[in-house]
Amino acid sequence: MKLLIKDAFVITMTSKDSPVVCRDIAIEEGMISHIGEVPSAFIPDKIIDGTGHIAMPGLINAHTHMAMSLLRNYADDLPLMEWLSEKIWPVEGHLNGEAVYAGTLLSLVELIRSGVTTYRDMYFYMEDVARATEAVGLRAVLGLGMVGVTDPEQKLLSQTKAFFHHWHLSCDGRIRVEVAPHAPYTCSDDYLKAAFELSQSLETTMHIHLSESLSEVKASYDTHGVSPVKHLEDLGVLNKHVSAAHCVHIDQKDIEILKQHGVSVLYNPSSNLKLGNGFAPIAQLMEAGVNVAIGTDGSASNNNLNLFEELHLAALVNKGVTGDPTALPAYKVLEIATINGAKALGIDHLVGTLEVGKRADLILIDLEKPHLVPHHDLVSAVVYSAAATDVSHVICDGVVLMEDYEFTCLDEKNVMTQAKLEASKLIKRHKGGVE
Amino acid sequence: MKLLIKDAFVITMTSKDSPVVCRDIAIEEGMISHIGEVPSAFIPDKIIDGTGHIAMPGLINAHTHMAMSLLRNYADDLPLMEWLSEKIWPVEGHLNGEAVYAGTLLSLVELIRSGVTTYRDMYFYMEDVARATEAVGLRAVLGLGMVGVTDPEQKLLSQTKAFFHHWHLSCDGRIRVEVAPHAPYTCSDDYLKAAFELSQSLETTMHIHLSESLSEVKASYDTHGVSPVKHLEDLGVLNKHVSAAHCVHIDQKDIEILKQHGVSVLYNPSSNLKLGNGFAPIAQLMEAGVNVAIGTDGSASNNNLNLFEELHLAALVNKGVTGDPTALPAYKVLEIATINGAKALGIDHLVGTLEVGKRADLILIDLEKPHLVPHHDLVSAVVYSAAATDVSHVICDGVVLMEDYEFTCLDEKNVMTQAKLEASKLIKRHKGGVE
Repeated sequence: MKLLIKDAFVITMTSKDSPVVCRDIAIEEGMISHIGEVPSAFIPDKIIDGTGHIAMPGLINAHTHMAMSLLRNYADDLPLMEWLSEKIWPVEGHLNGEAVYAGTLLSLVELIRSGVTTYRDMYFYMEDVARATEAVGLRAVLGLGMVGVTDPEQKLLSQTKAFFHHWHLSCDGRIRVEVAPHAPYTCSDDYLKAAFELSQSLETTMHIHLSESLSEVKASYDTHGVSPVKHLEDLGVLNKHVSAAHCVHIDQKDIEILKQHGVSVLYNPSSNLKLGNGFAPIAQLMEAGVNVAIGTDGSASNNNLNLFEELHLAALVNKGVTGDPTALPAYKVLEIATINGAKALGIDHLVGTLEVGKRADLILIDLEKPHLVPHHDLVSAVVYSAAATDVSHVICDGVVLMEDYEFTCLDEKNVMTQAKLEASKLIKRHKGGVE
Repeated sequence: MKLLIKDAFVITMTSKDSPVVCRDIAIEEGMISHIGEVPSAFIPDKIIDGTGHIAMPGLINAHTHMAMSLLRNYADDLPLMEWLSEKIWPVEGHLNGEAVYAGTLLSLVELIRSGVTTYRDMYFYMEDVARATEAVGLRAVLGLGMVGVTDPEQKLLSQTKAFFHHWHLSCDGRIRVEVAPHAPYTCSDDYLKAAFELSQSLETTMHIHLSESLSEVKASYDTHGVSPVKHLEDLGVLNKHVSAAHCVHIDQKDIEILKQHGVSVLYNPSSNLKLGNGFAPIAQLMEAGVNVAIGTDGSASNNNLNLFEELHLAALVNKGVTGDPTALPAYKVLEIATINGAKALGIDHLVGTLEVGKRADLILIDLEKPHLVPHHDLVSAVVYSAAATDVSHVICDGVVLMEDYEFTCLDEKNVMTQAKLEASKLIKRHKGGVE
């Protein structure tokens, strides 16, 4: 399949100084073969008219729990522990593979509609998540969430291994599998070490929650005498293949540790704010040279998977916190959502920028919207003015998944119907009723 | 014209405990005549099927500068004074009536698309703003922005008076005119008093910027020995008909003064964050009983007029600032954008809730979107999950302005074309080129 995108304003994300001008993009066998001048020998099977559109790398949602969209708007405005222990966890106990499949499909539809081509998921029933991802065609890095205190026989580690061997690099490499111990406070020291060793022996990445709440940090000092970040360093489980989600309550020393070991930080502004956890020190992390990527977290604490909202929040909130309107300028925010995400996931050789030789993961943004007119600065427009619903086309691995706002091979209505059904069955199981 | 909306989930905003259930709404001569049971004698001229939709009061954008959308994405990520004095003010000096008309029309289209039925504008060439509003059919409270230091002959006060007599309560009462001295730091004490007296003699509201930046507050202490809020109190220009935009840098004493005089605060989260001004103490203001409304500010410091984004920010950021996930719960956030806005504008007897006898300003939100499924809690859905683009219908004063995402009497493409043209002419005038 040879695809040609004509006359789009191309944001390559290769350099801040790369001009955003009208160019063509040629795609051959899922790979970007030309940007700009396309040789006349290239005879496309399909042409997409990019006039009046921005073309840019597909966004990367670097931290989410896809199937939690079944619990969207189920419990809000509650104290954190009440929300978790009285609302979310009891219902999650009634999840099954069908529910996770339906919830993941719903989230995949939402991701595509909001311009995401790669996502990183940590949840349960990951075989079902992989099946849904295989069917829909997005790129994903998947990890089974492992709670080490309830896993004395290390069953979840074995399951991770089996999941890895079944799915890693499947679907032409679109699906990758990683090791995902939930957090320092839900895994014993030995468990964390075993998880890290597994990630090393499998030569894959590791994904963990870290320093999300003040109470977690306090408890770490009480138990270990050090911060959660320092505790992981002491255990020897930090390196450049590790990504830490949240990192809200960290100090300068923690930032230095993260930088020293090349750990990526996965920033989740909506979730951190909504749960009352506060403001991750993103400007300081970036200044220190830490790779910062961005995610939506799950839809129970957001309550959507709209990465454009997260970009908007990242750009605005960090200016507010620092009192500096030059903090996190628009281009840097776009880097967080593209190439930095690719680096965190260990796939920056494949995606994250528009470059000849990379896989063709890209989106078009329709500029003919009242809130995007006039067109003084297109990078600013994406970060400050655009909405997820301005994404008109989504291409992943060279395959057109959405064209002019229409899915090419997904029945959106049916996905919504199935998700509603599984959500209602889930709540019924939770309440002890008959399904 | 008799209009019937059938089977919508109605959020009346009359009480937190009012159930959100499927009901009908009858509208007669621009007024809501029934909610729930509609008598069979009511024979509608037109029926809108509300199935799968929320019906709620139209949103109120309580602080904006509409025509600044011509400068959307024109200058971002700059220090405040450089942004203002080197970028915005020099270009604004080249505005004219045609530019303001085109920019206002563009903003009106954007407001309707994002579910706003009433807006409050402070800018220049207000006759042109009024003409655009008359043509489009929204409800507005308009004030000529008066900078008192460059107005020694009080020409702007005279213009305000003339504007008032020409336009106040025109268009069946849809357009109201108020007095709008820009800010304490741009108006002399005598000028502020004259403006306040004018608002009293005209029996209308007053709209002013207040305590937006730290430097403004510092300068007030240097000049007057008190905060800007206290300074206005000392001048005797605060009462319940006054609205103060921003109020970011205020202390407990200021909050007491605002409460005591019944002043409404107009919160602009995006703008306050983007310009690096910080976080208005909204939770404390509301706890103290101050009426808080919400606005987008102008598109040069936002960079759109998407009130859903402001709601989202209000709900999230105030939880982050207070560290309390129960702060600003969803229903309270919706009040800020509806009935509180109506109170601030002095029109809560007309709009702000869905009640029999009030004017029919309402919107429908389409629930059949992946990011809104499933439907566990519809108030949470509007605040945490919905996007402006989920607004499918907009009715103002009983007139359907947008139906199933289509404008009934506006040529959106032409509005965008004209705005692009006027923006480019404006920049050319600024650069000294030929138009």
